Amino acid sequence: MKLHIDVEATDGAARAGTVNTQRGTISTPVFMPVGTKAAVGTLAAHDLERLGIQIMLGNTYHLMLRPGADLIDRLGGLHGFMDWGGHVLTDSGGYQIFSLEPKVDDEGARFKSTYDGTTYHLTPEGAATVQAQLGADISMVLDVCPSLPSPPEVLRAAVDRTVRWAARGRAAFLAEQPQRIEQGRDQAQFGIVQGGTDSALRVESARRTLEIGFDGYAVGGLSVGEGREQMVEALASTLDELPADQPRYFMGLGDPVGLVEAVGLGVDMFDCVLPTRLGRHGTILTSAGRLNLRNAKHADDDGPLDPDFDGDGTGRYSRAYLRHLLMVNEPTGRRLCTLHNVAWTLDLVARMRAAIVDGRFAAMRREVLDVWTRPGVI
Amino acid sequence: MKLHIDVEATDGAARAGTVNTQRGTISTPVFMPVGTKAAVGTLAAHDLERLGIQIMLGNTYHLMLRPGADLIDRLGGLHGFMDWGGHVLTDSGGYQIFSLEPKVDDEGARFKSTYDGTTYHLTPEGAATVQAQLGADISMVLDVCPSLPSPPEVLRAAVDRTVRWAARGRAAFLAEQPQRIEQGRDQAQFGIVQGGTDSALRVESARRTLEIGFDGYAVGGLSVGEGREQMVEALASTLDELPADQPRYFMGLGDPVGLVEAVGLGVDMFDCVLPTRLGRHGTILTSAGRLNLRNAKHADDDGPLDPDFDGDGTGRYSRAYLRHLLMVNEPTGRRLCTLHNVAWTLDLVARMRAAIVDGRFAAMRREVLDVWTRPGVI
Repeated sequence: MKLHIDVEATDGAARAGTVNTQRGTISTPVFMPVGTKAAVGTLAAHDLERLGIQIMLGNTYHLMLRPGADLIDRLGGLHGFMDWGGHVLTDSGGYQIFSLEPKVDDEGARFKSTYDGTTYHLTPEGAATVQAQLGADISMVLDVCPSLPSPPEVLRAAVDRTVRWAARGRAAFLAEQPQRIEQGRDQAQFGIVQGGTDSALRVESARRTLEIGFDGYAVGGLSVGEGREQMVEALASTLDELPADQPRYFMGLGDPVGLVEAVGLGVDMFDCVLPTRLGRHGTILTSAGRLNLRNAKHADDDGPLDPDFDGDGTGRYSRAYLRHLLMVNEPTGRRLCTLHNVAWTLDLVARMRAAIVDGRFAAMRREVLDVWTRPGVI
Repeated sequence: MKLHIDVEATDGAARAGTVNTQRGTISTPVFMPVGTKAAVGTLAAHDLERLGIQIMLGNTYHLMLRPGADLIDRLGGLHGFMDWGGHVLTDSGGYQIFSLEPKVDDEGARFKSTYDGTTYHLTPEGAATVQAQLGADISMVLDVCPSLPSPPEVLRAAVDRTVRWAARGRAAFLAEQPQRIEQGRDQAQFGIVQGGTDSALRVESARRTLEIGFDGYAVGGLSVGEGREQMVEALASTLDELPADQPRYFMGLGDPVGLVEAVGLGVDMFDCVLPTRLGRHGTILTSAGRLNLRNAKHADDDGPLDPDFDGDGTGRYSRAYLRHLLMVNEPTGRRLCTLHNVAWTLDLVARMRAAIVDGRFAAMRREVLDVWTRPGVI
């Protein structure tokens, strides 16, 4: 189904809205935590519910290998498998597969499973089918995502192949759609704009993706190593081309500076492994920047994780307690850091939404940039 | 403070009661999950509260090494450090230290830290002081716990030394008690009966421990490899000697057969790493016996963990989902198994208490033995 965004409030280019799907309503801007292997870090469905998570991302690459898309399909898709009633967006698997140096031709990508060495062949059509089996509310087309910087001819080839694959992926999705609707699974499919940091190429990629026509649009291939100014410029030129009445999704972005910049330019959806990955390594997000809790200076620190935030139930624990758990390799430490970081990121996005509604987004953007671009703050 | 048990109901020798401490009331029989390193498996204080845990056990050995008893003391004892408002019982550290093959003489045990090789010297007096620093509501004397079977002279020597250490530990505890009471920390200290499976030695150990006089009494040195009948006989002869108006604690017991036998003989308190250790390895406790979820037959199994139990919030997840998480080494799998096992064991003990109150404990005991002593069930 084509997804529309009902814009409730704007503040500059930033917008607060709602997106209705068959499953329910998503308030935007929205951050989607990443549930790589059908669990978000150490969080299961009851944790996600408690945190108020609206939509999680599932990794097609990992899930198609283990436990396999057929099995998840038989057990009711990711929703049935995880007992998760919220939304699920799945990626196409391409991003992970390209990191494995696959054999790629116009047909698709051939790669070996990191689990057992079995060879797989992922095509645009296959990516659409697998994501349907996973029961995604929103699925993504298979795309080509070059790292940055890349030579112009690499960026150009990626755009061309992404567009060809998008057409095939869209056709496969639409061919299977009537059957899915019959089963009560009216899914949406997003196209992906590539083009690196080349604004002209971004515009071309956006226009050709729009010509195919999708239920929503994503910006891919950014936040992969380029500087903030380059990112903002390439993003802005992409967003200018995307329809205002459909959701816009920035793939793989979740740091505070990136979020506030992208929301400011009018992006609605985000996903990122950052909160869970940092949590796994004992680093927490706070109103004063990142904090590595393994640092010896926290050994005696009876203070809360972030004095300015206690929305997640972890605010009761001290830095000293979490440092101890991390230092003795007790998994509870990593879990509590993950819970905190996911809740903190959701709260940041919720506060951005409130700022848009109240017409004070510019001030909030400045505050976030003041903290997170200060020298020494990471 | 001397702990009394108010017996509400008896059924044969089994008893349901309440024990009042300065911190609050404990309903017995009670199972205490083990919080080795200041967290129970993957569970923090808010998880313990949600599970309705009344009292947890802290491991003095681990905590005195990391993060250290001084630090925990400065941060408010284990209660402040973990933000845990329930009861805490600490062991003496002896059980772990004896597994390190320490140099033991009448003075105490000298051992090397498994963390950094530093040499420590644990004495009966030191064990009392460290547990006071940890803020234990109930602390244990340092004892000598031989493995079974052991030669008679080893069991005899263990009883003699345990009694000598008990007298010194008690004196140290009582000397520090006025100062603790002044600080609002009126702790209790339990003595430990040893004697292996030799009933006469058990009786002697109990009488000599009672002569010293403690706030409650524990049975140590059982459930360490002996058979069920030997355990029951040695336990029964110990319990005959213990005062009926004080709590009785069986150290290191947590399997269903052991629990039902010991409750049937009149034990009030238990601790065991079994539920958390099994959970960490993907094995769950169910009404039909243990289940290793890694087994391939659960790959497609959409059924709940235990069809007869859903008191813990994990009943919503399928065996297939947990098997997947375990197979891909996603920590959420181990966490959910741990949550389930701890909740399942608490529920078993709660059902025993209800059976005692209702005068149907003998029937319940038979049901538990029927399931758990069936050939093939572990």
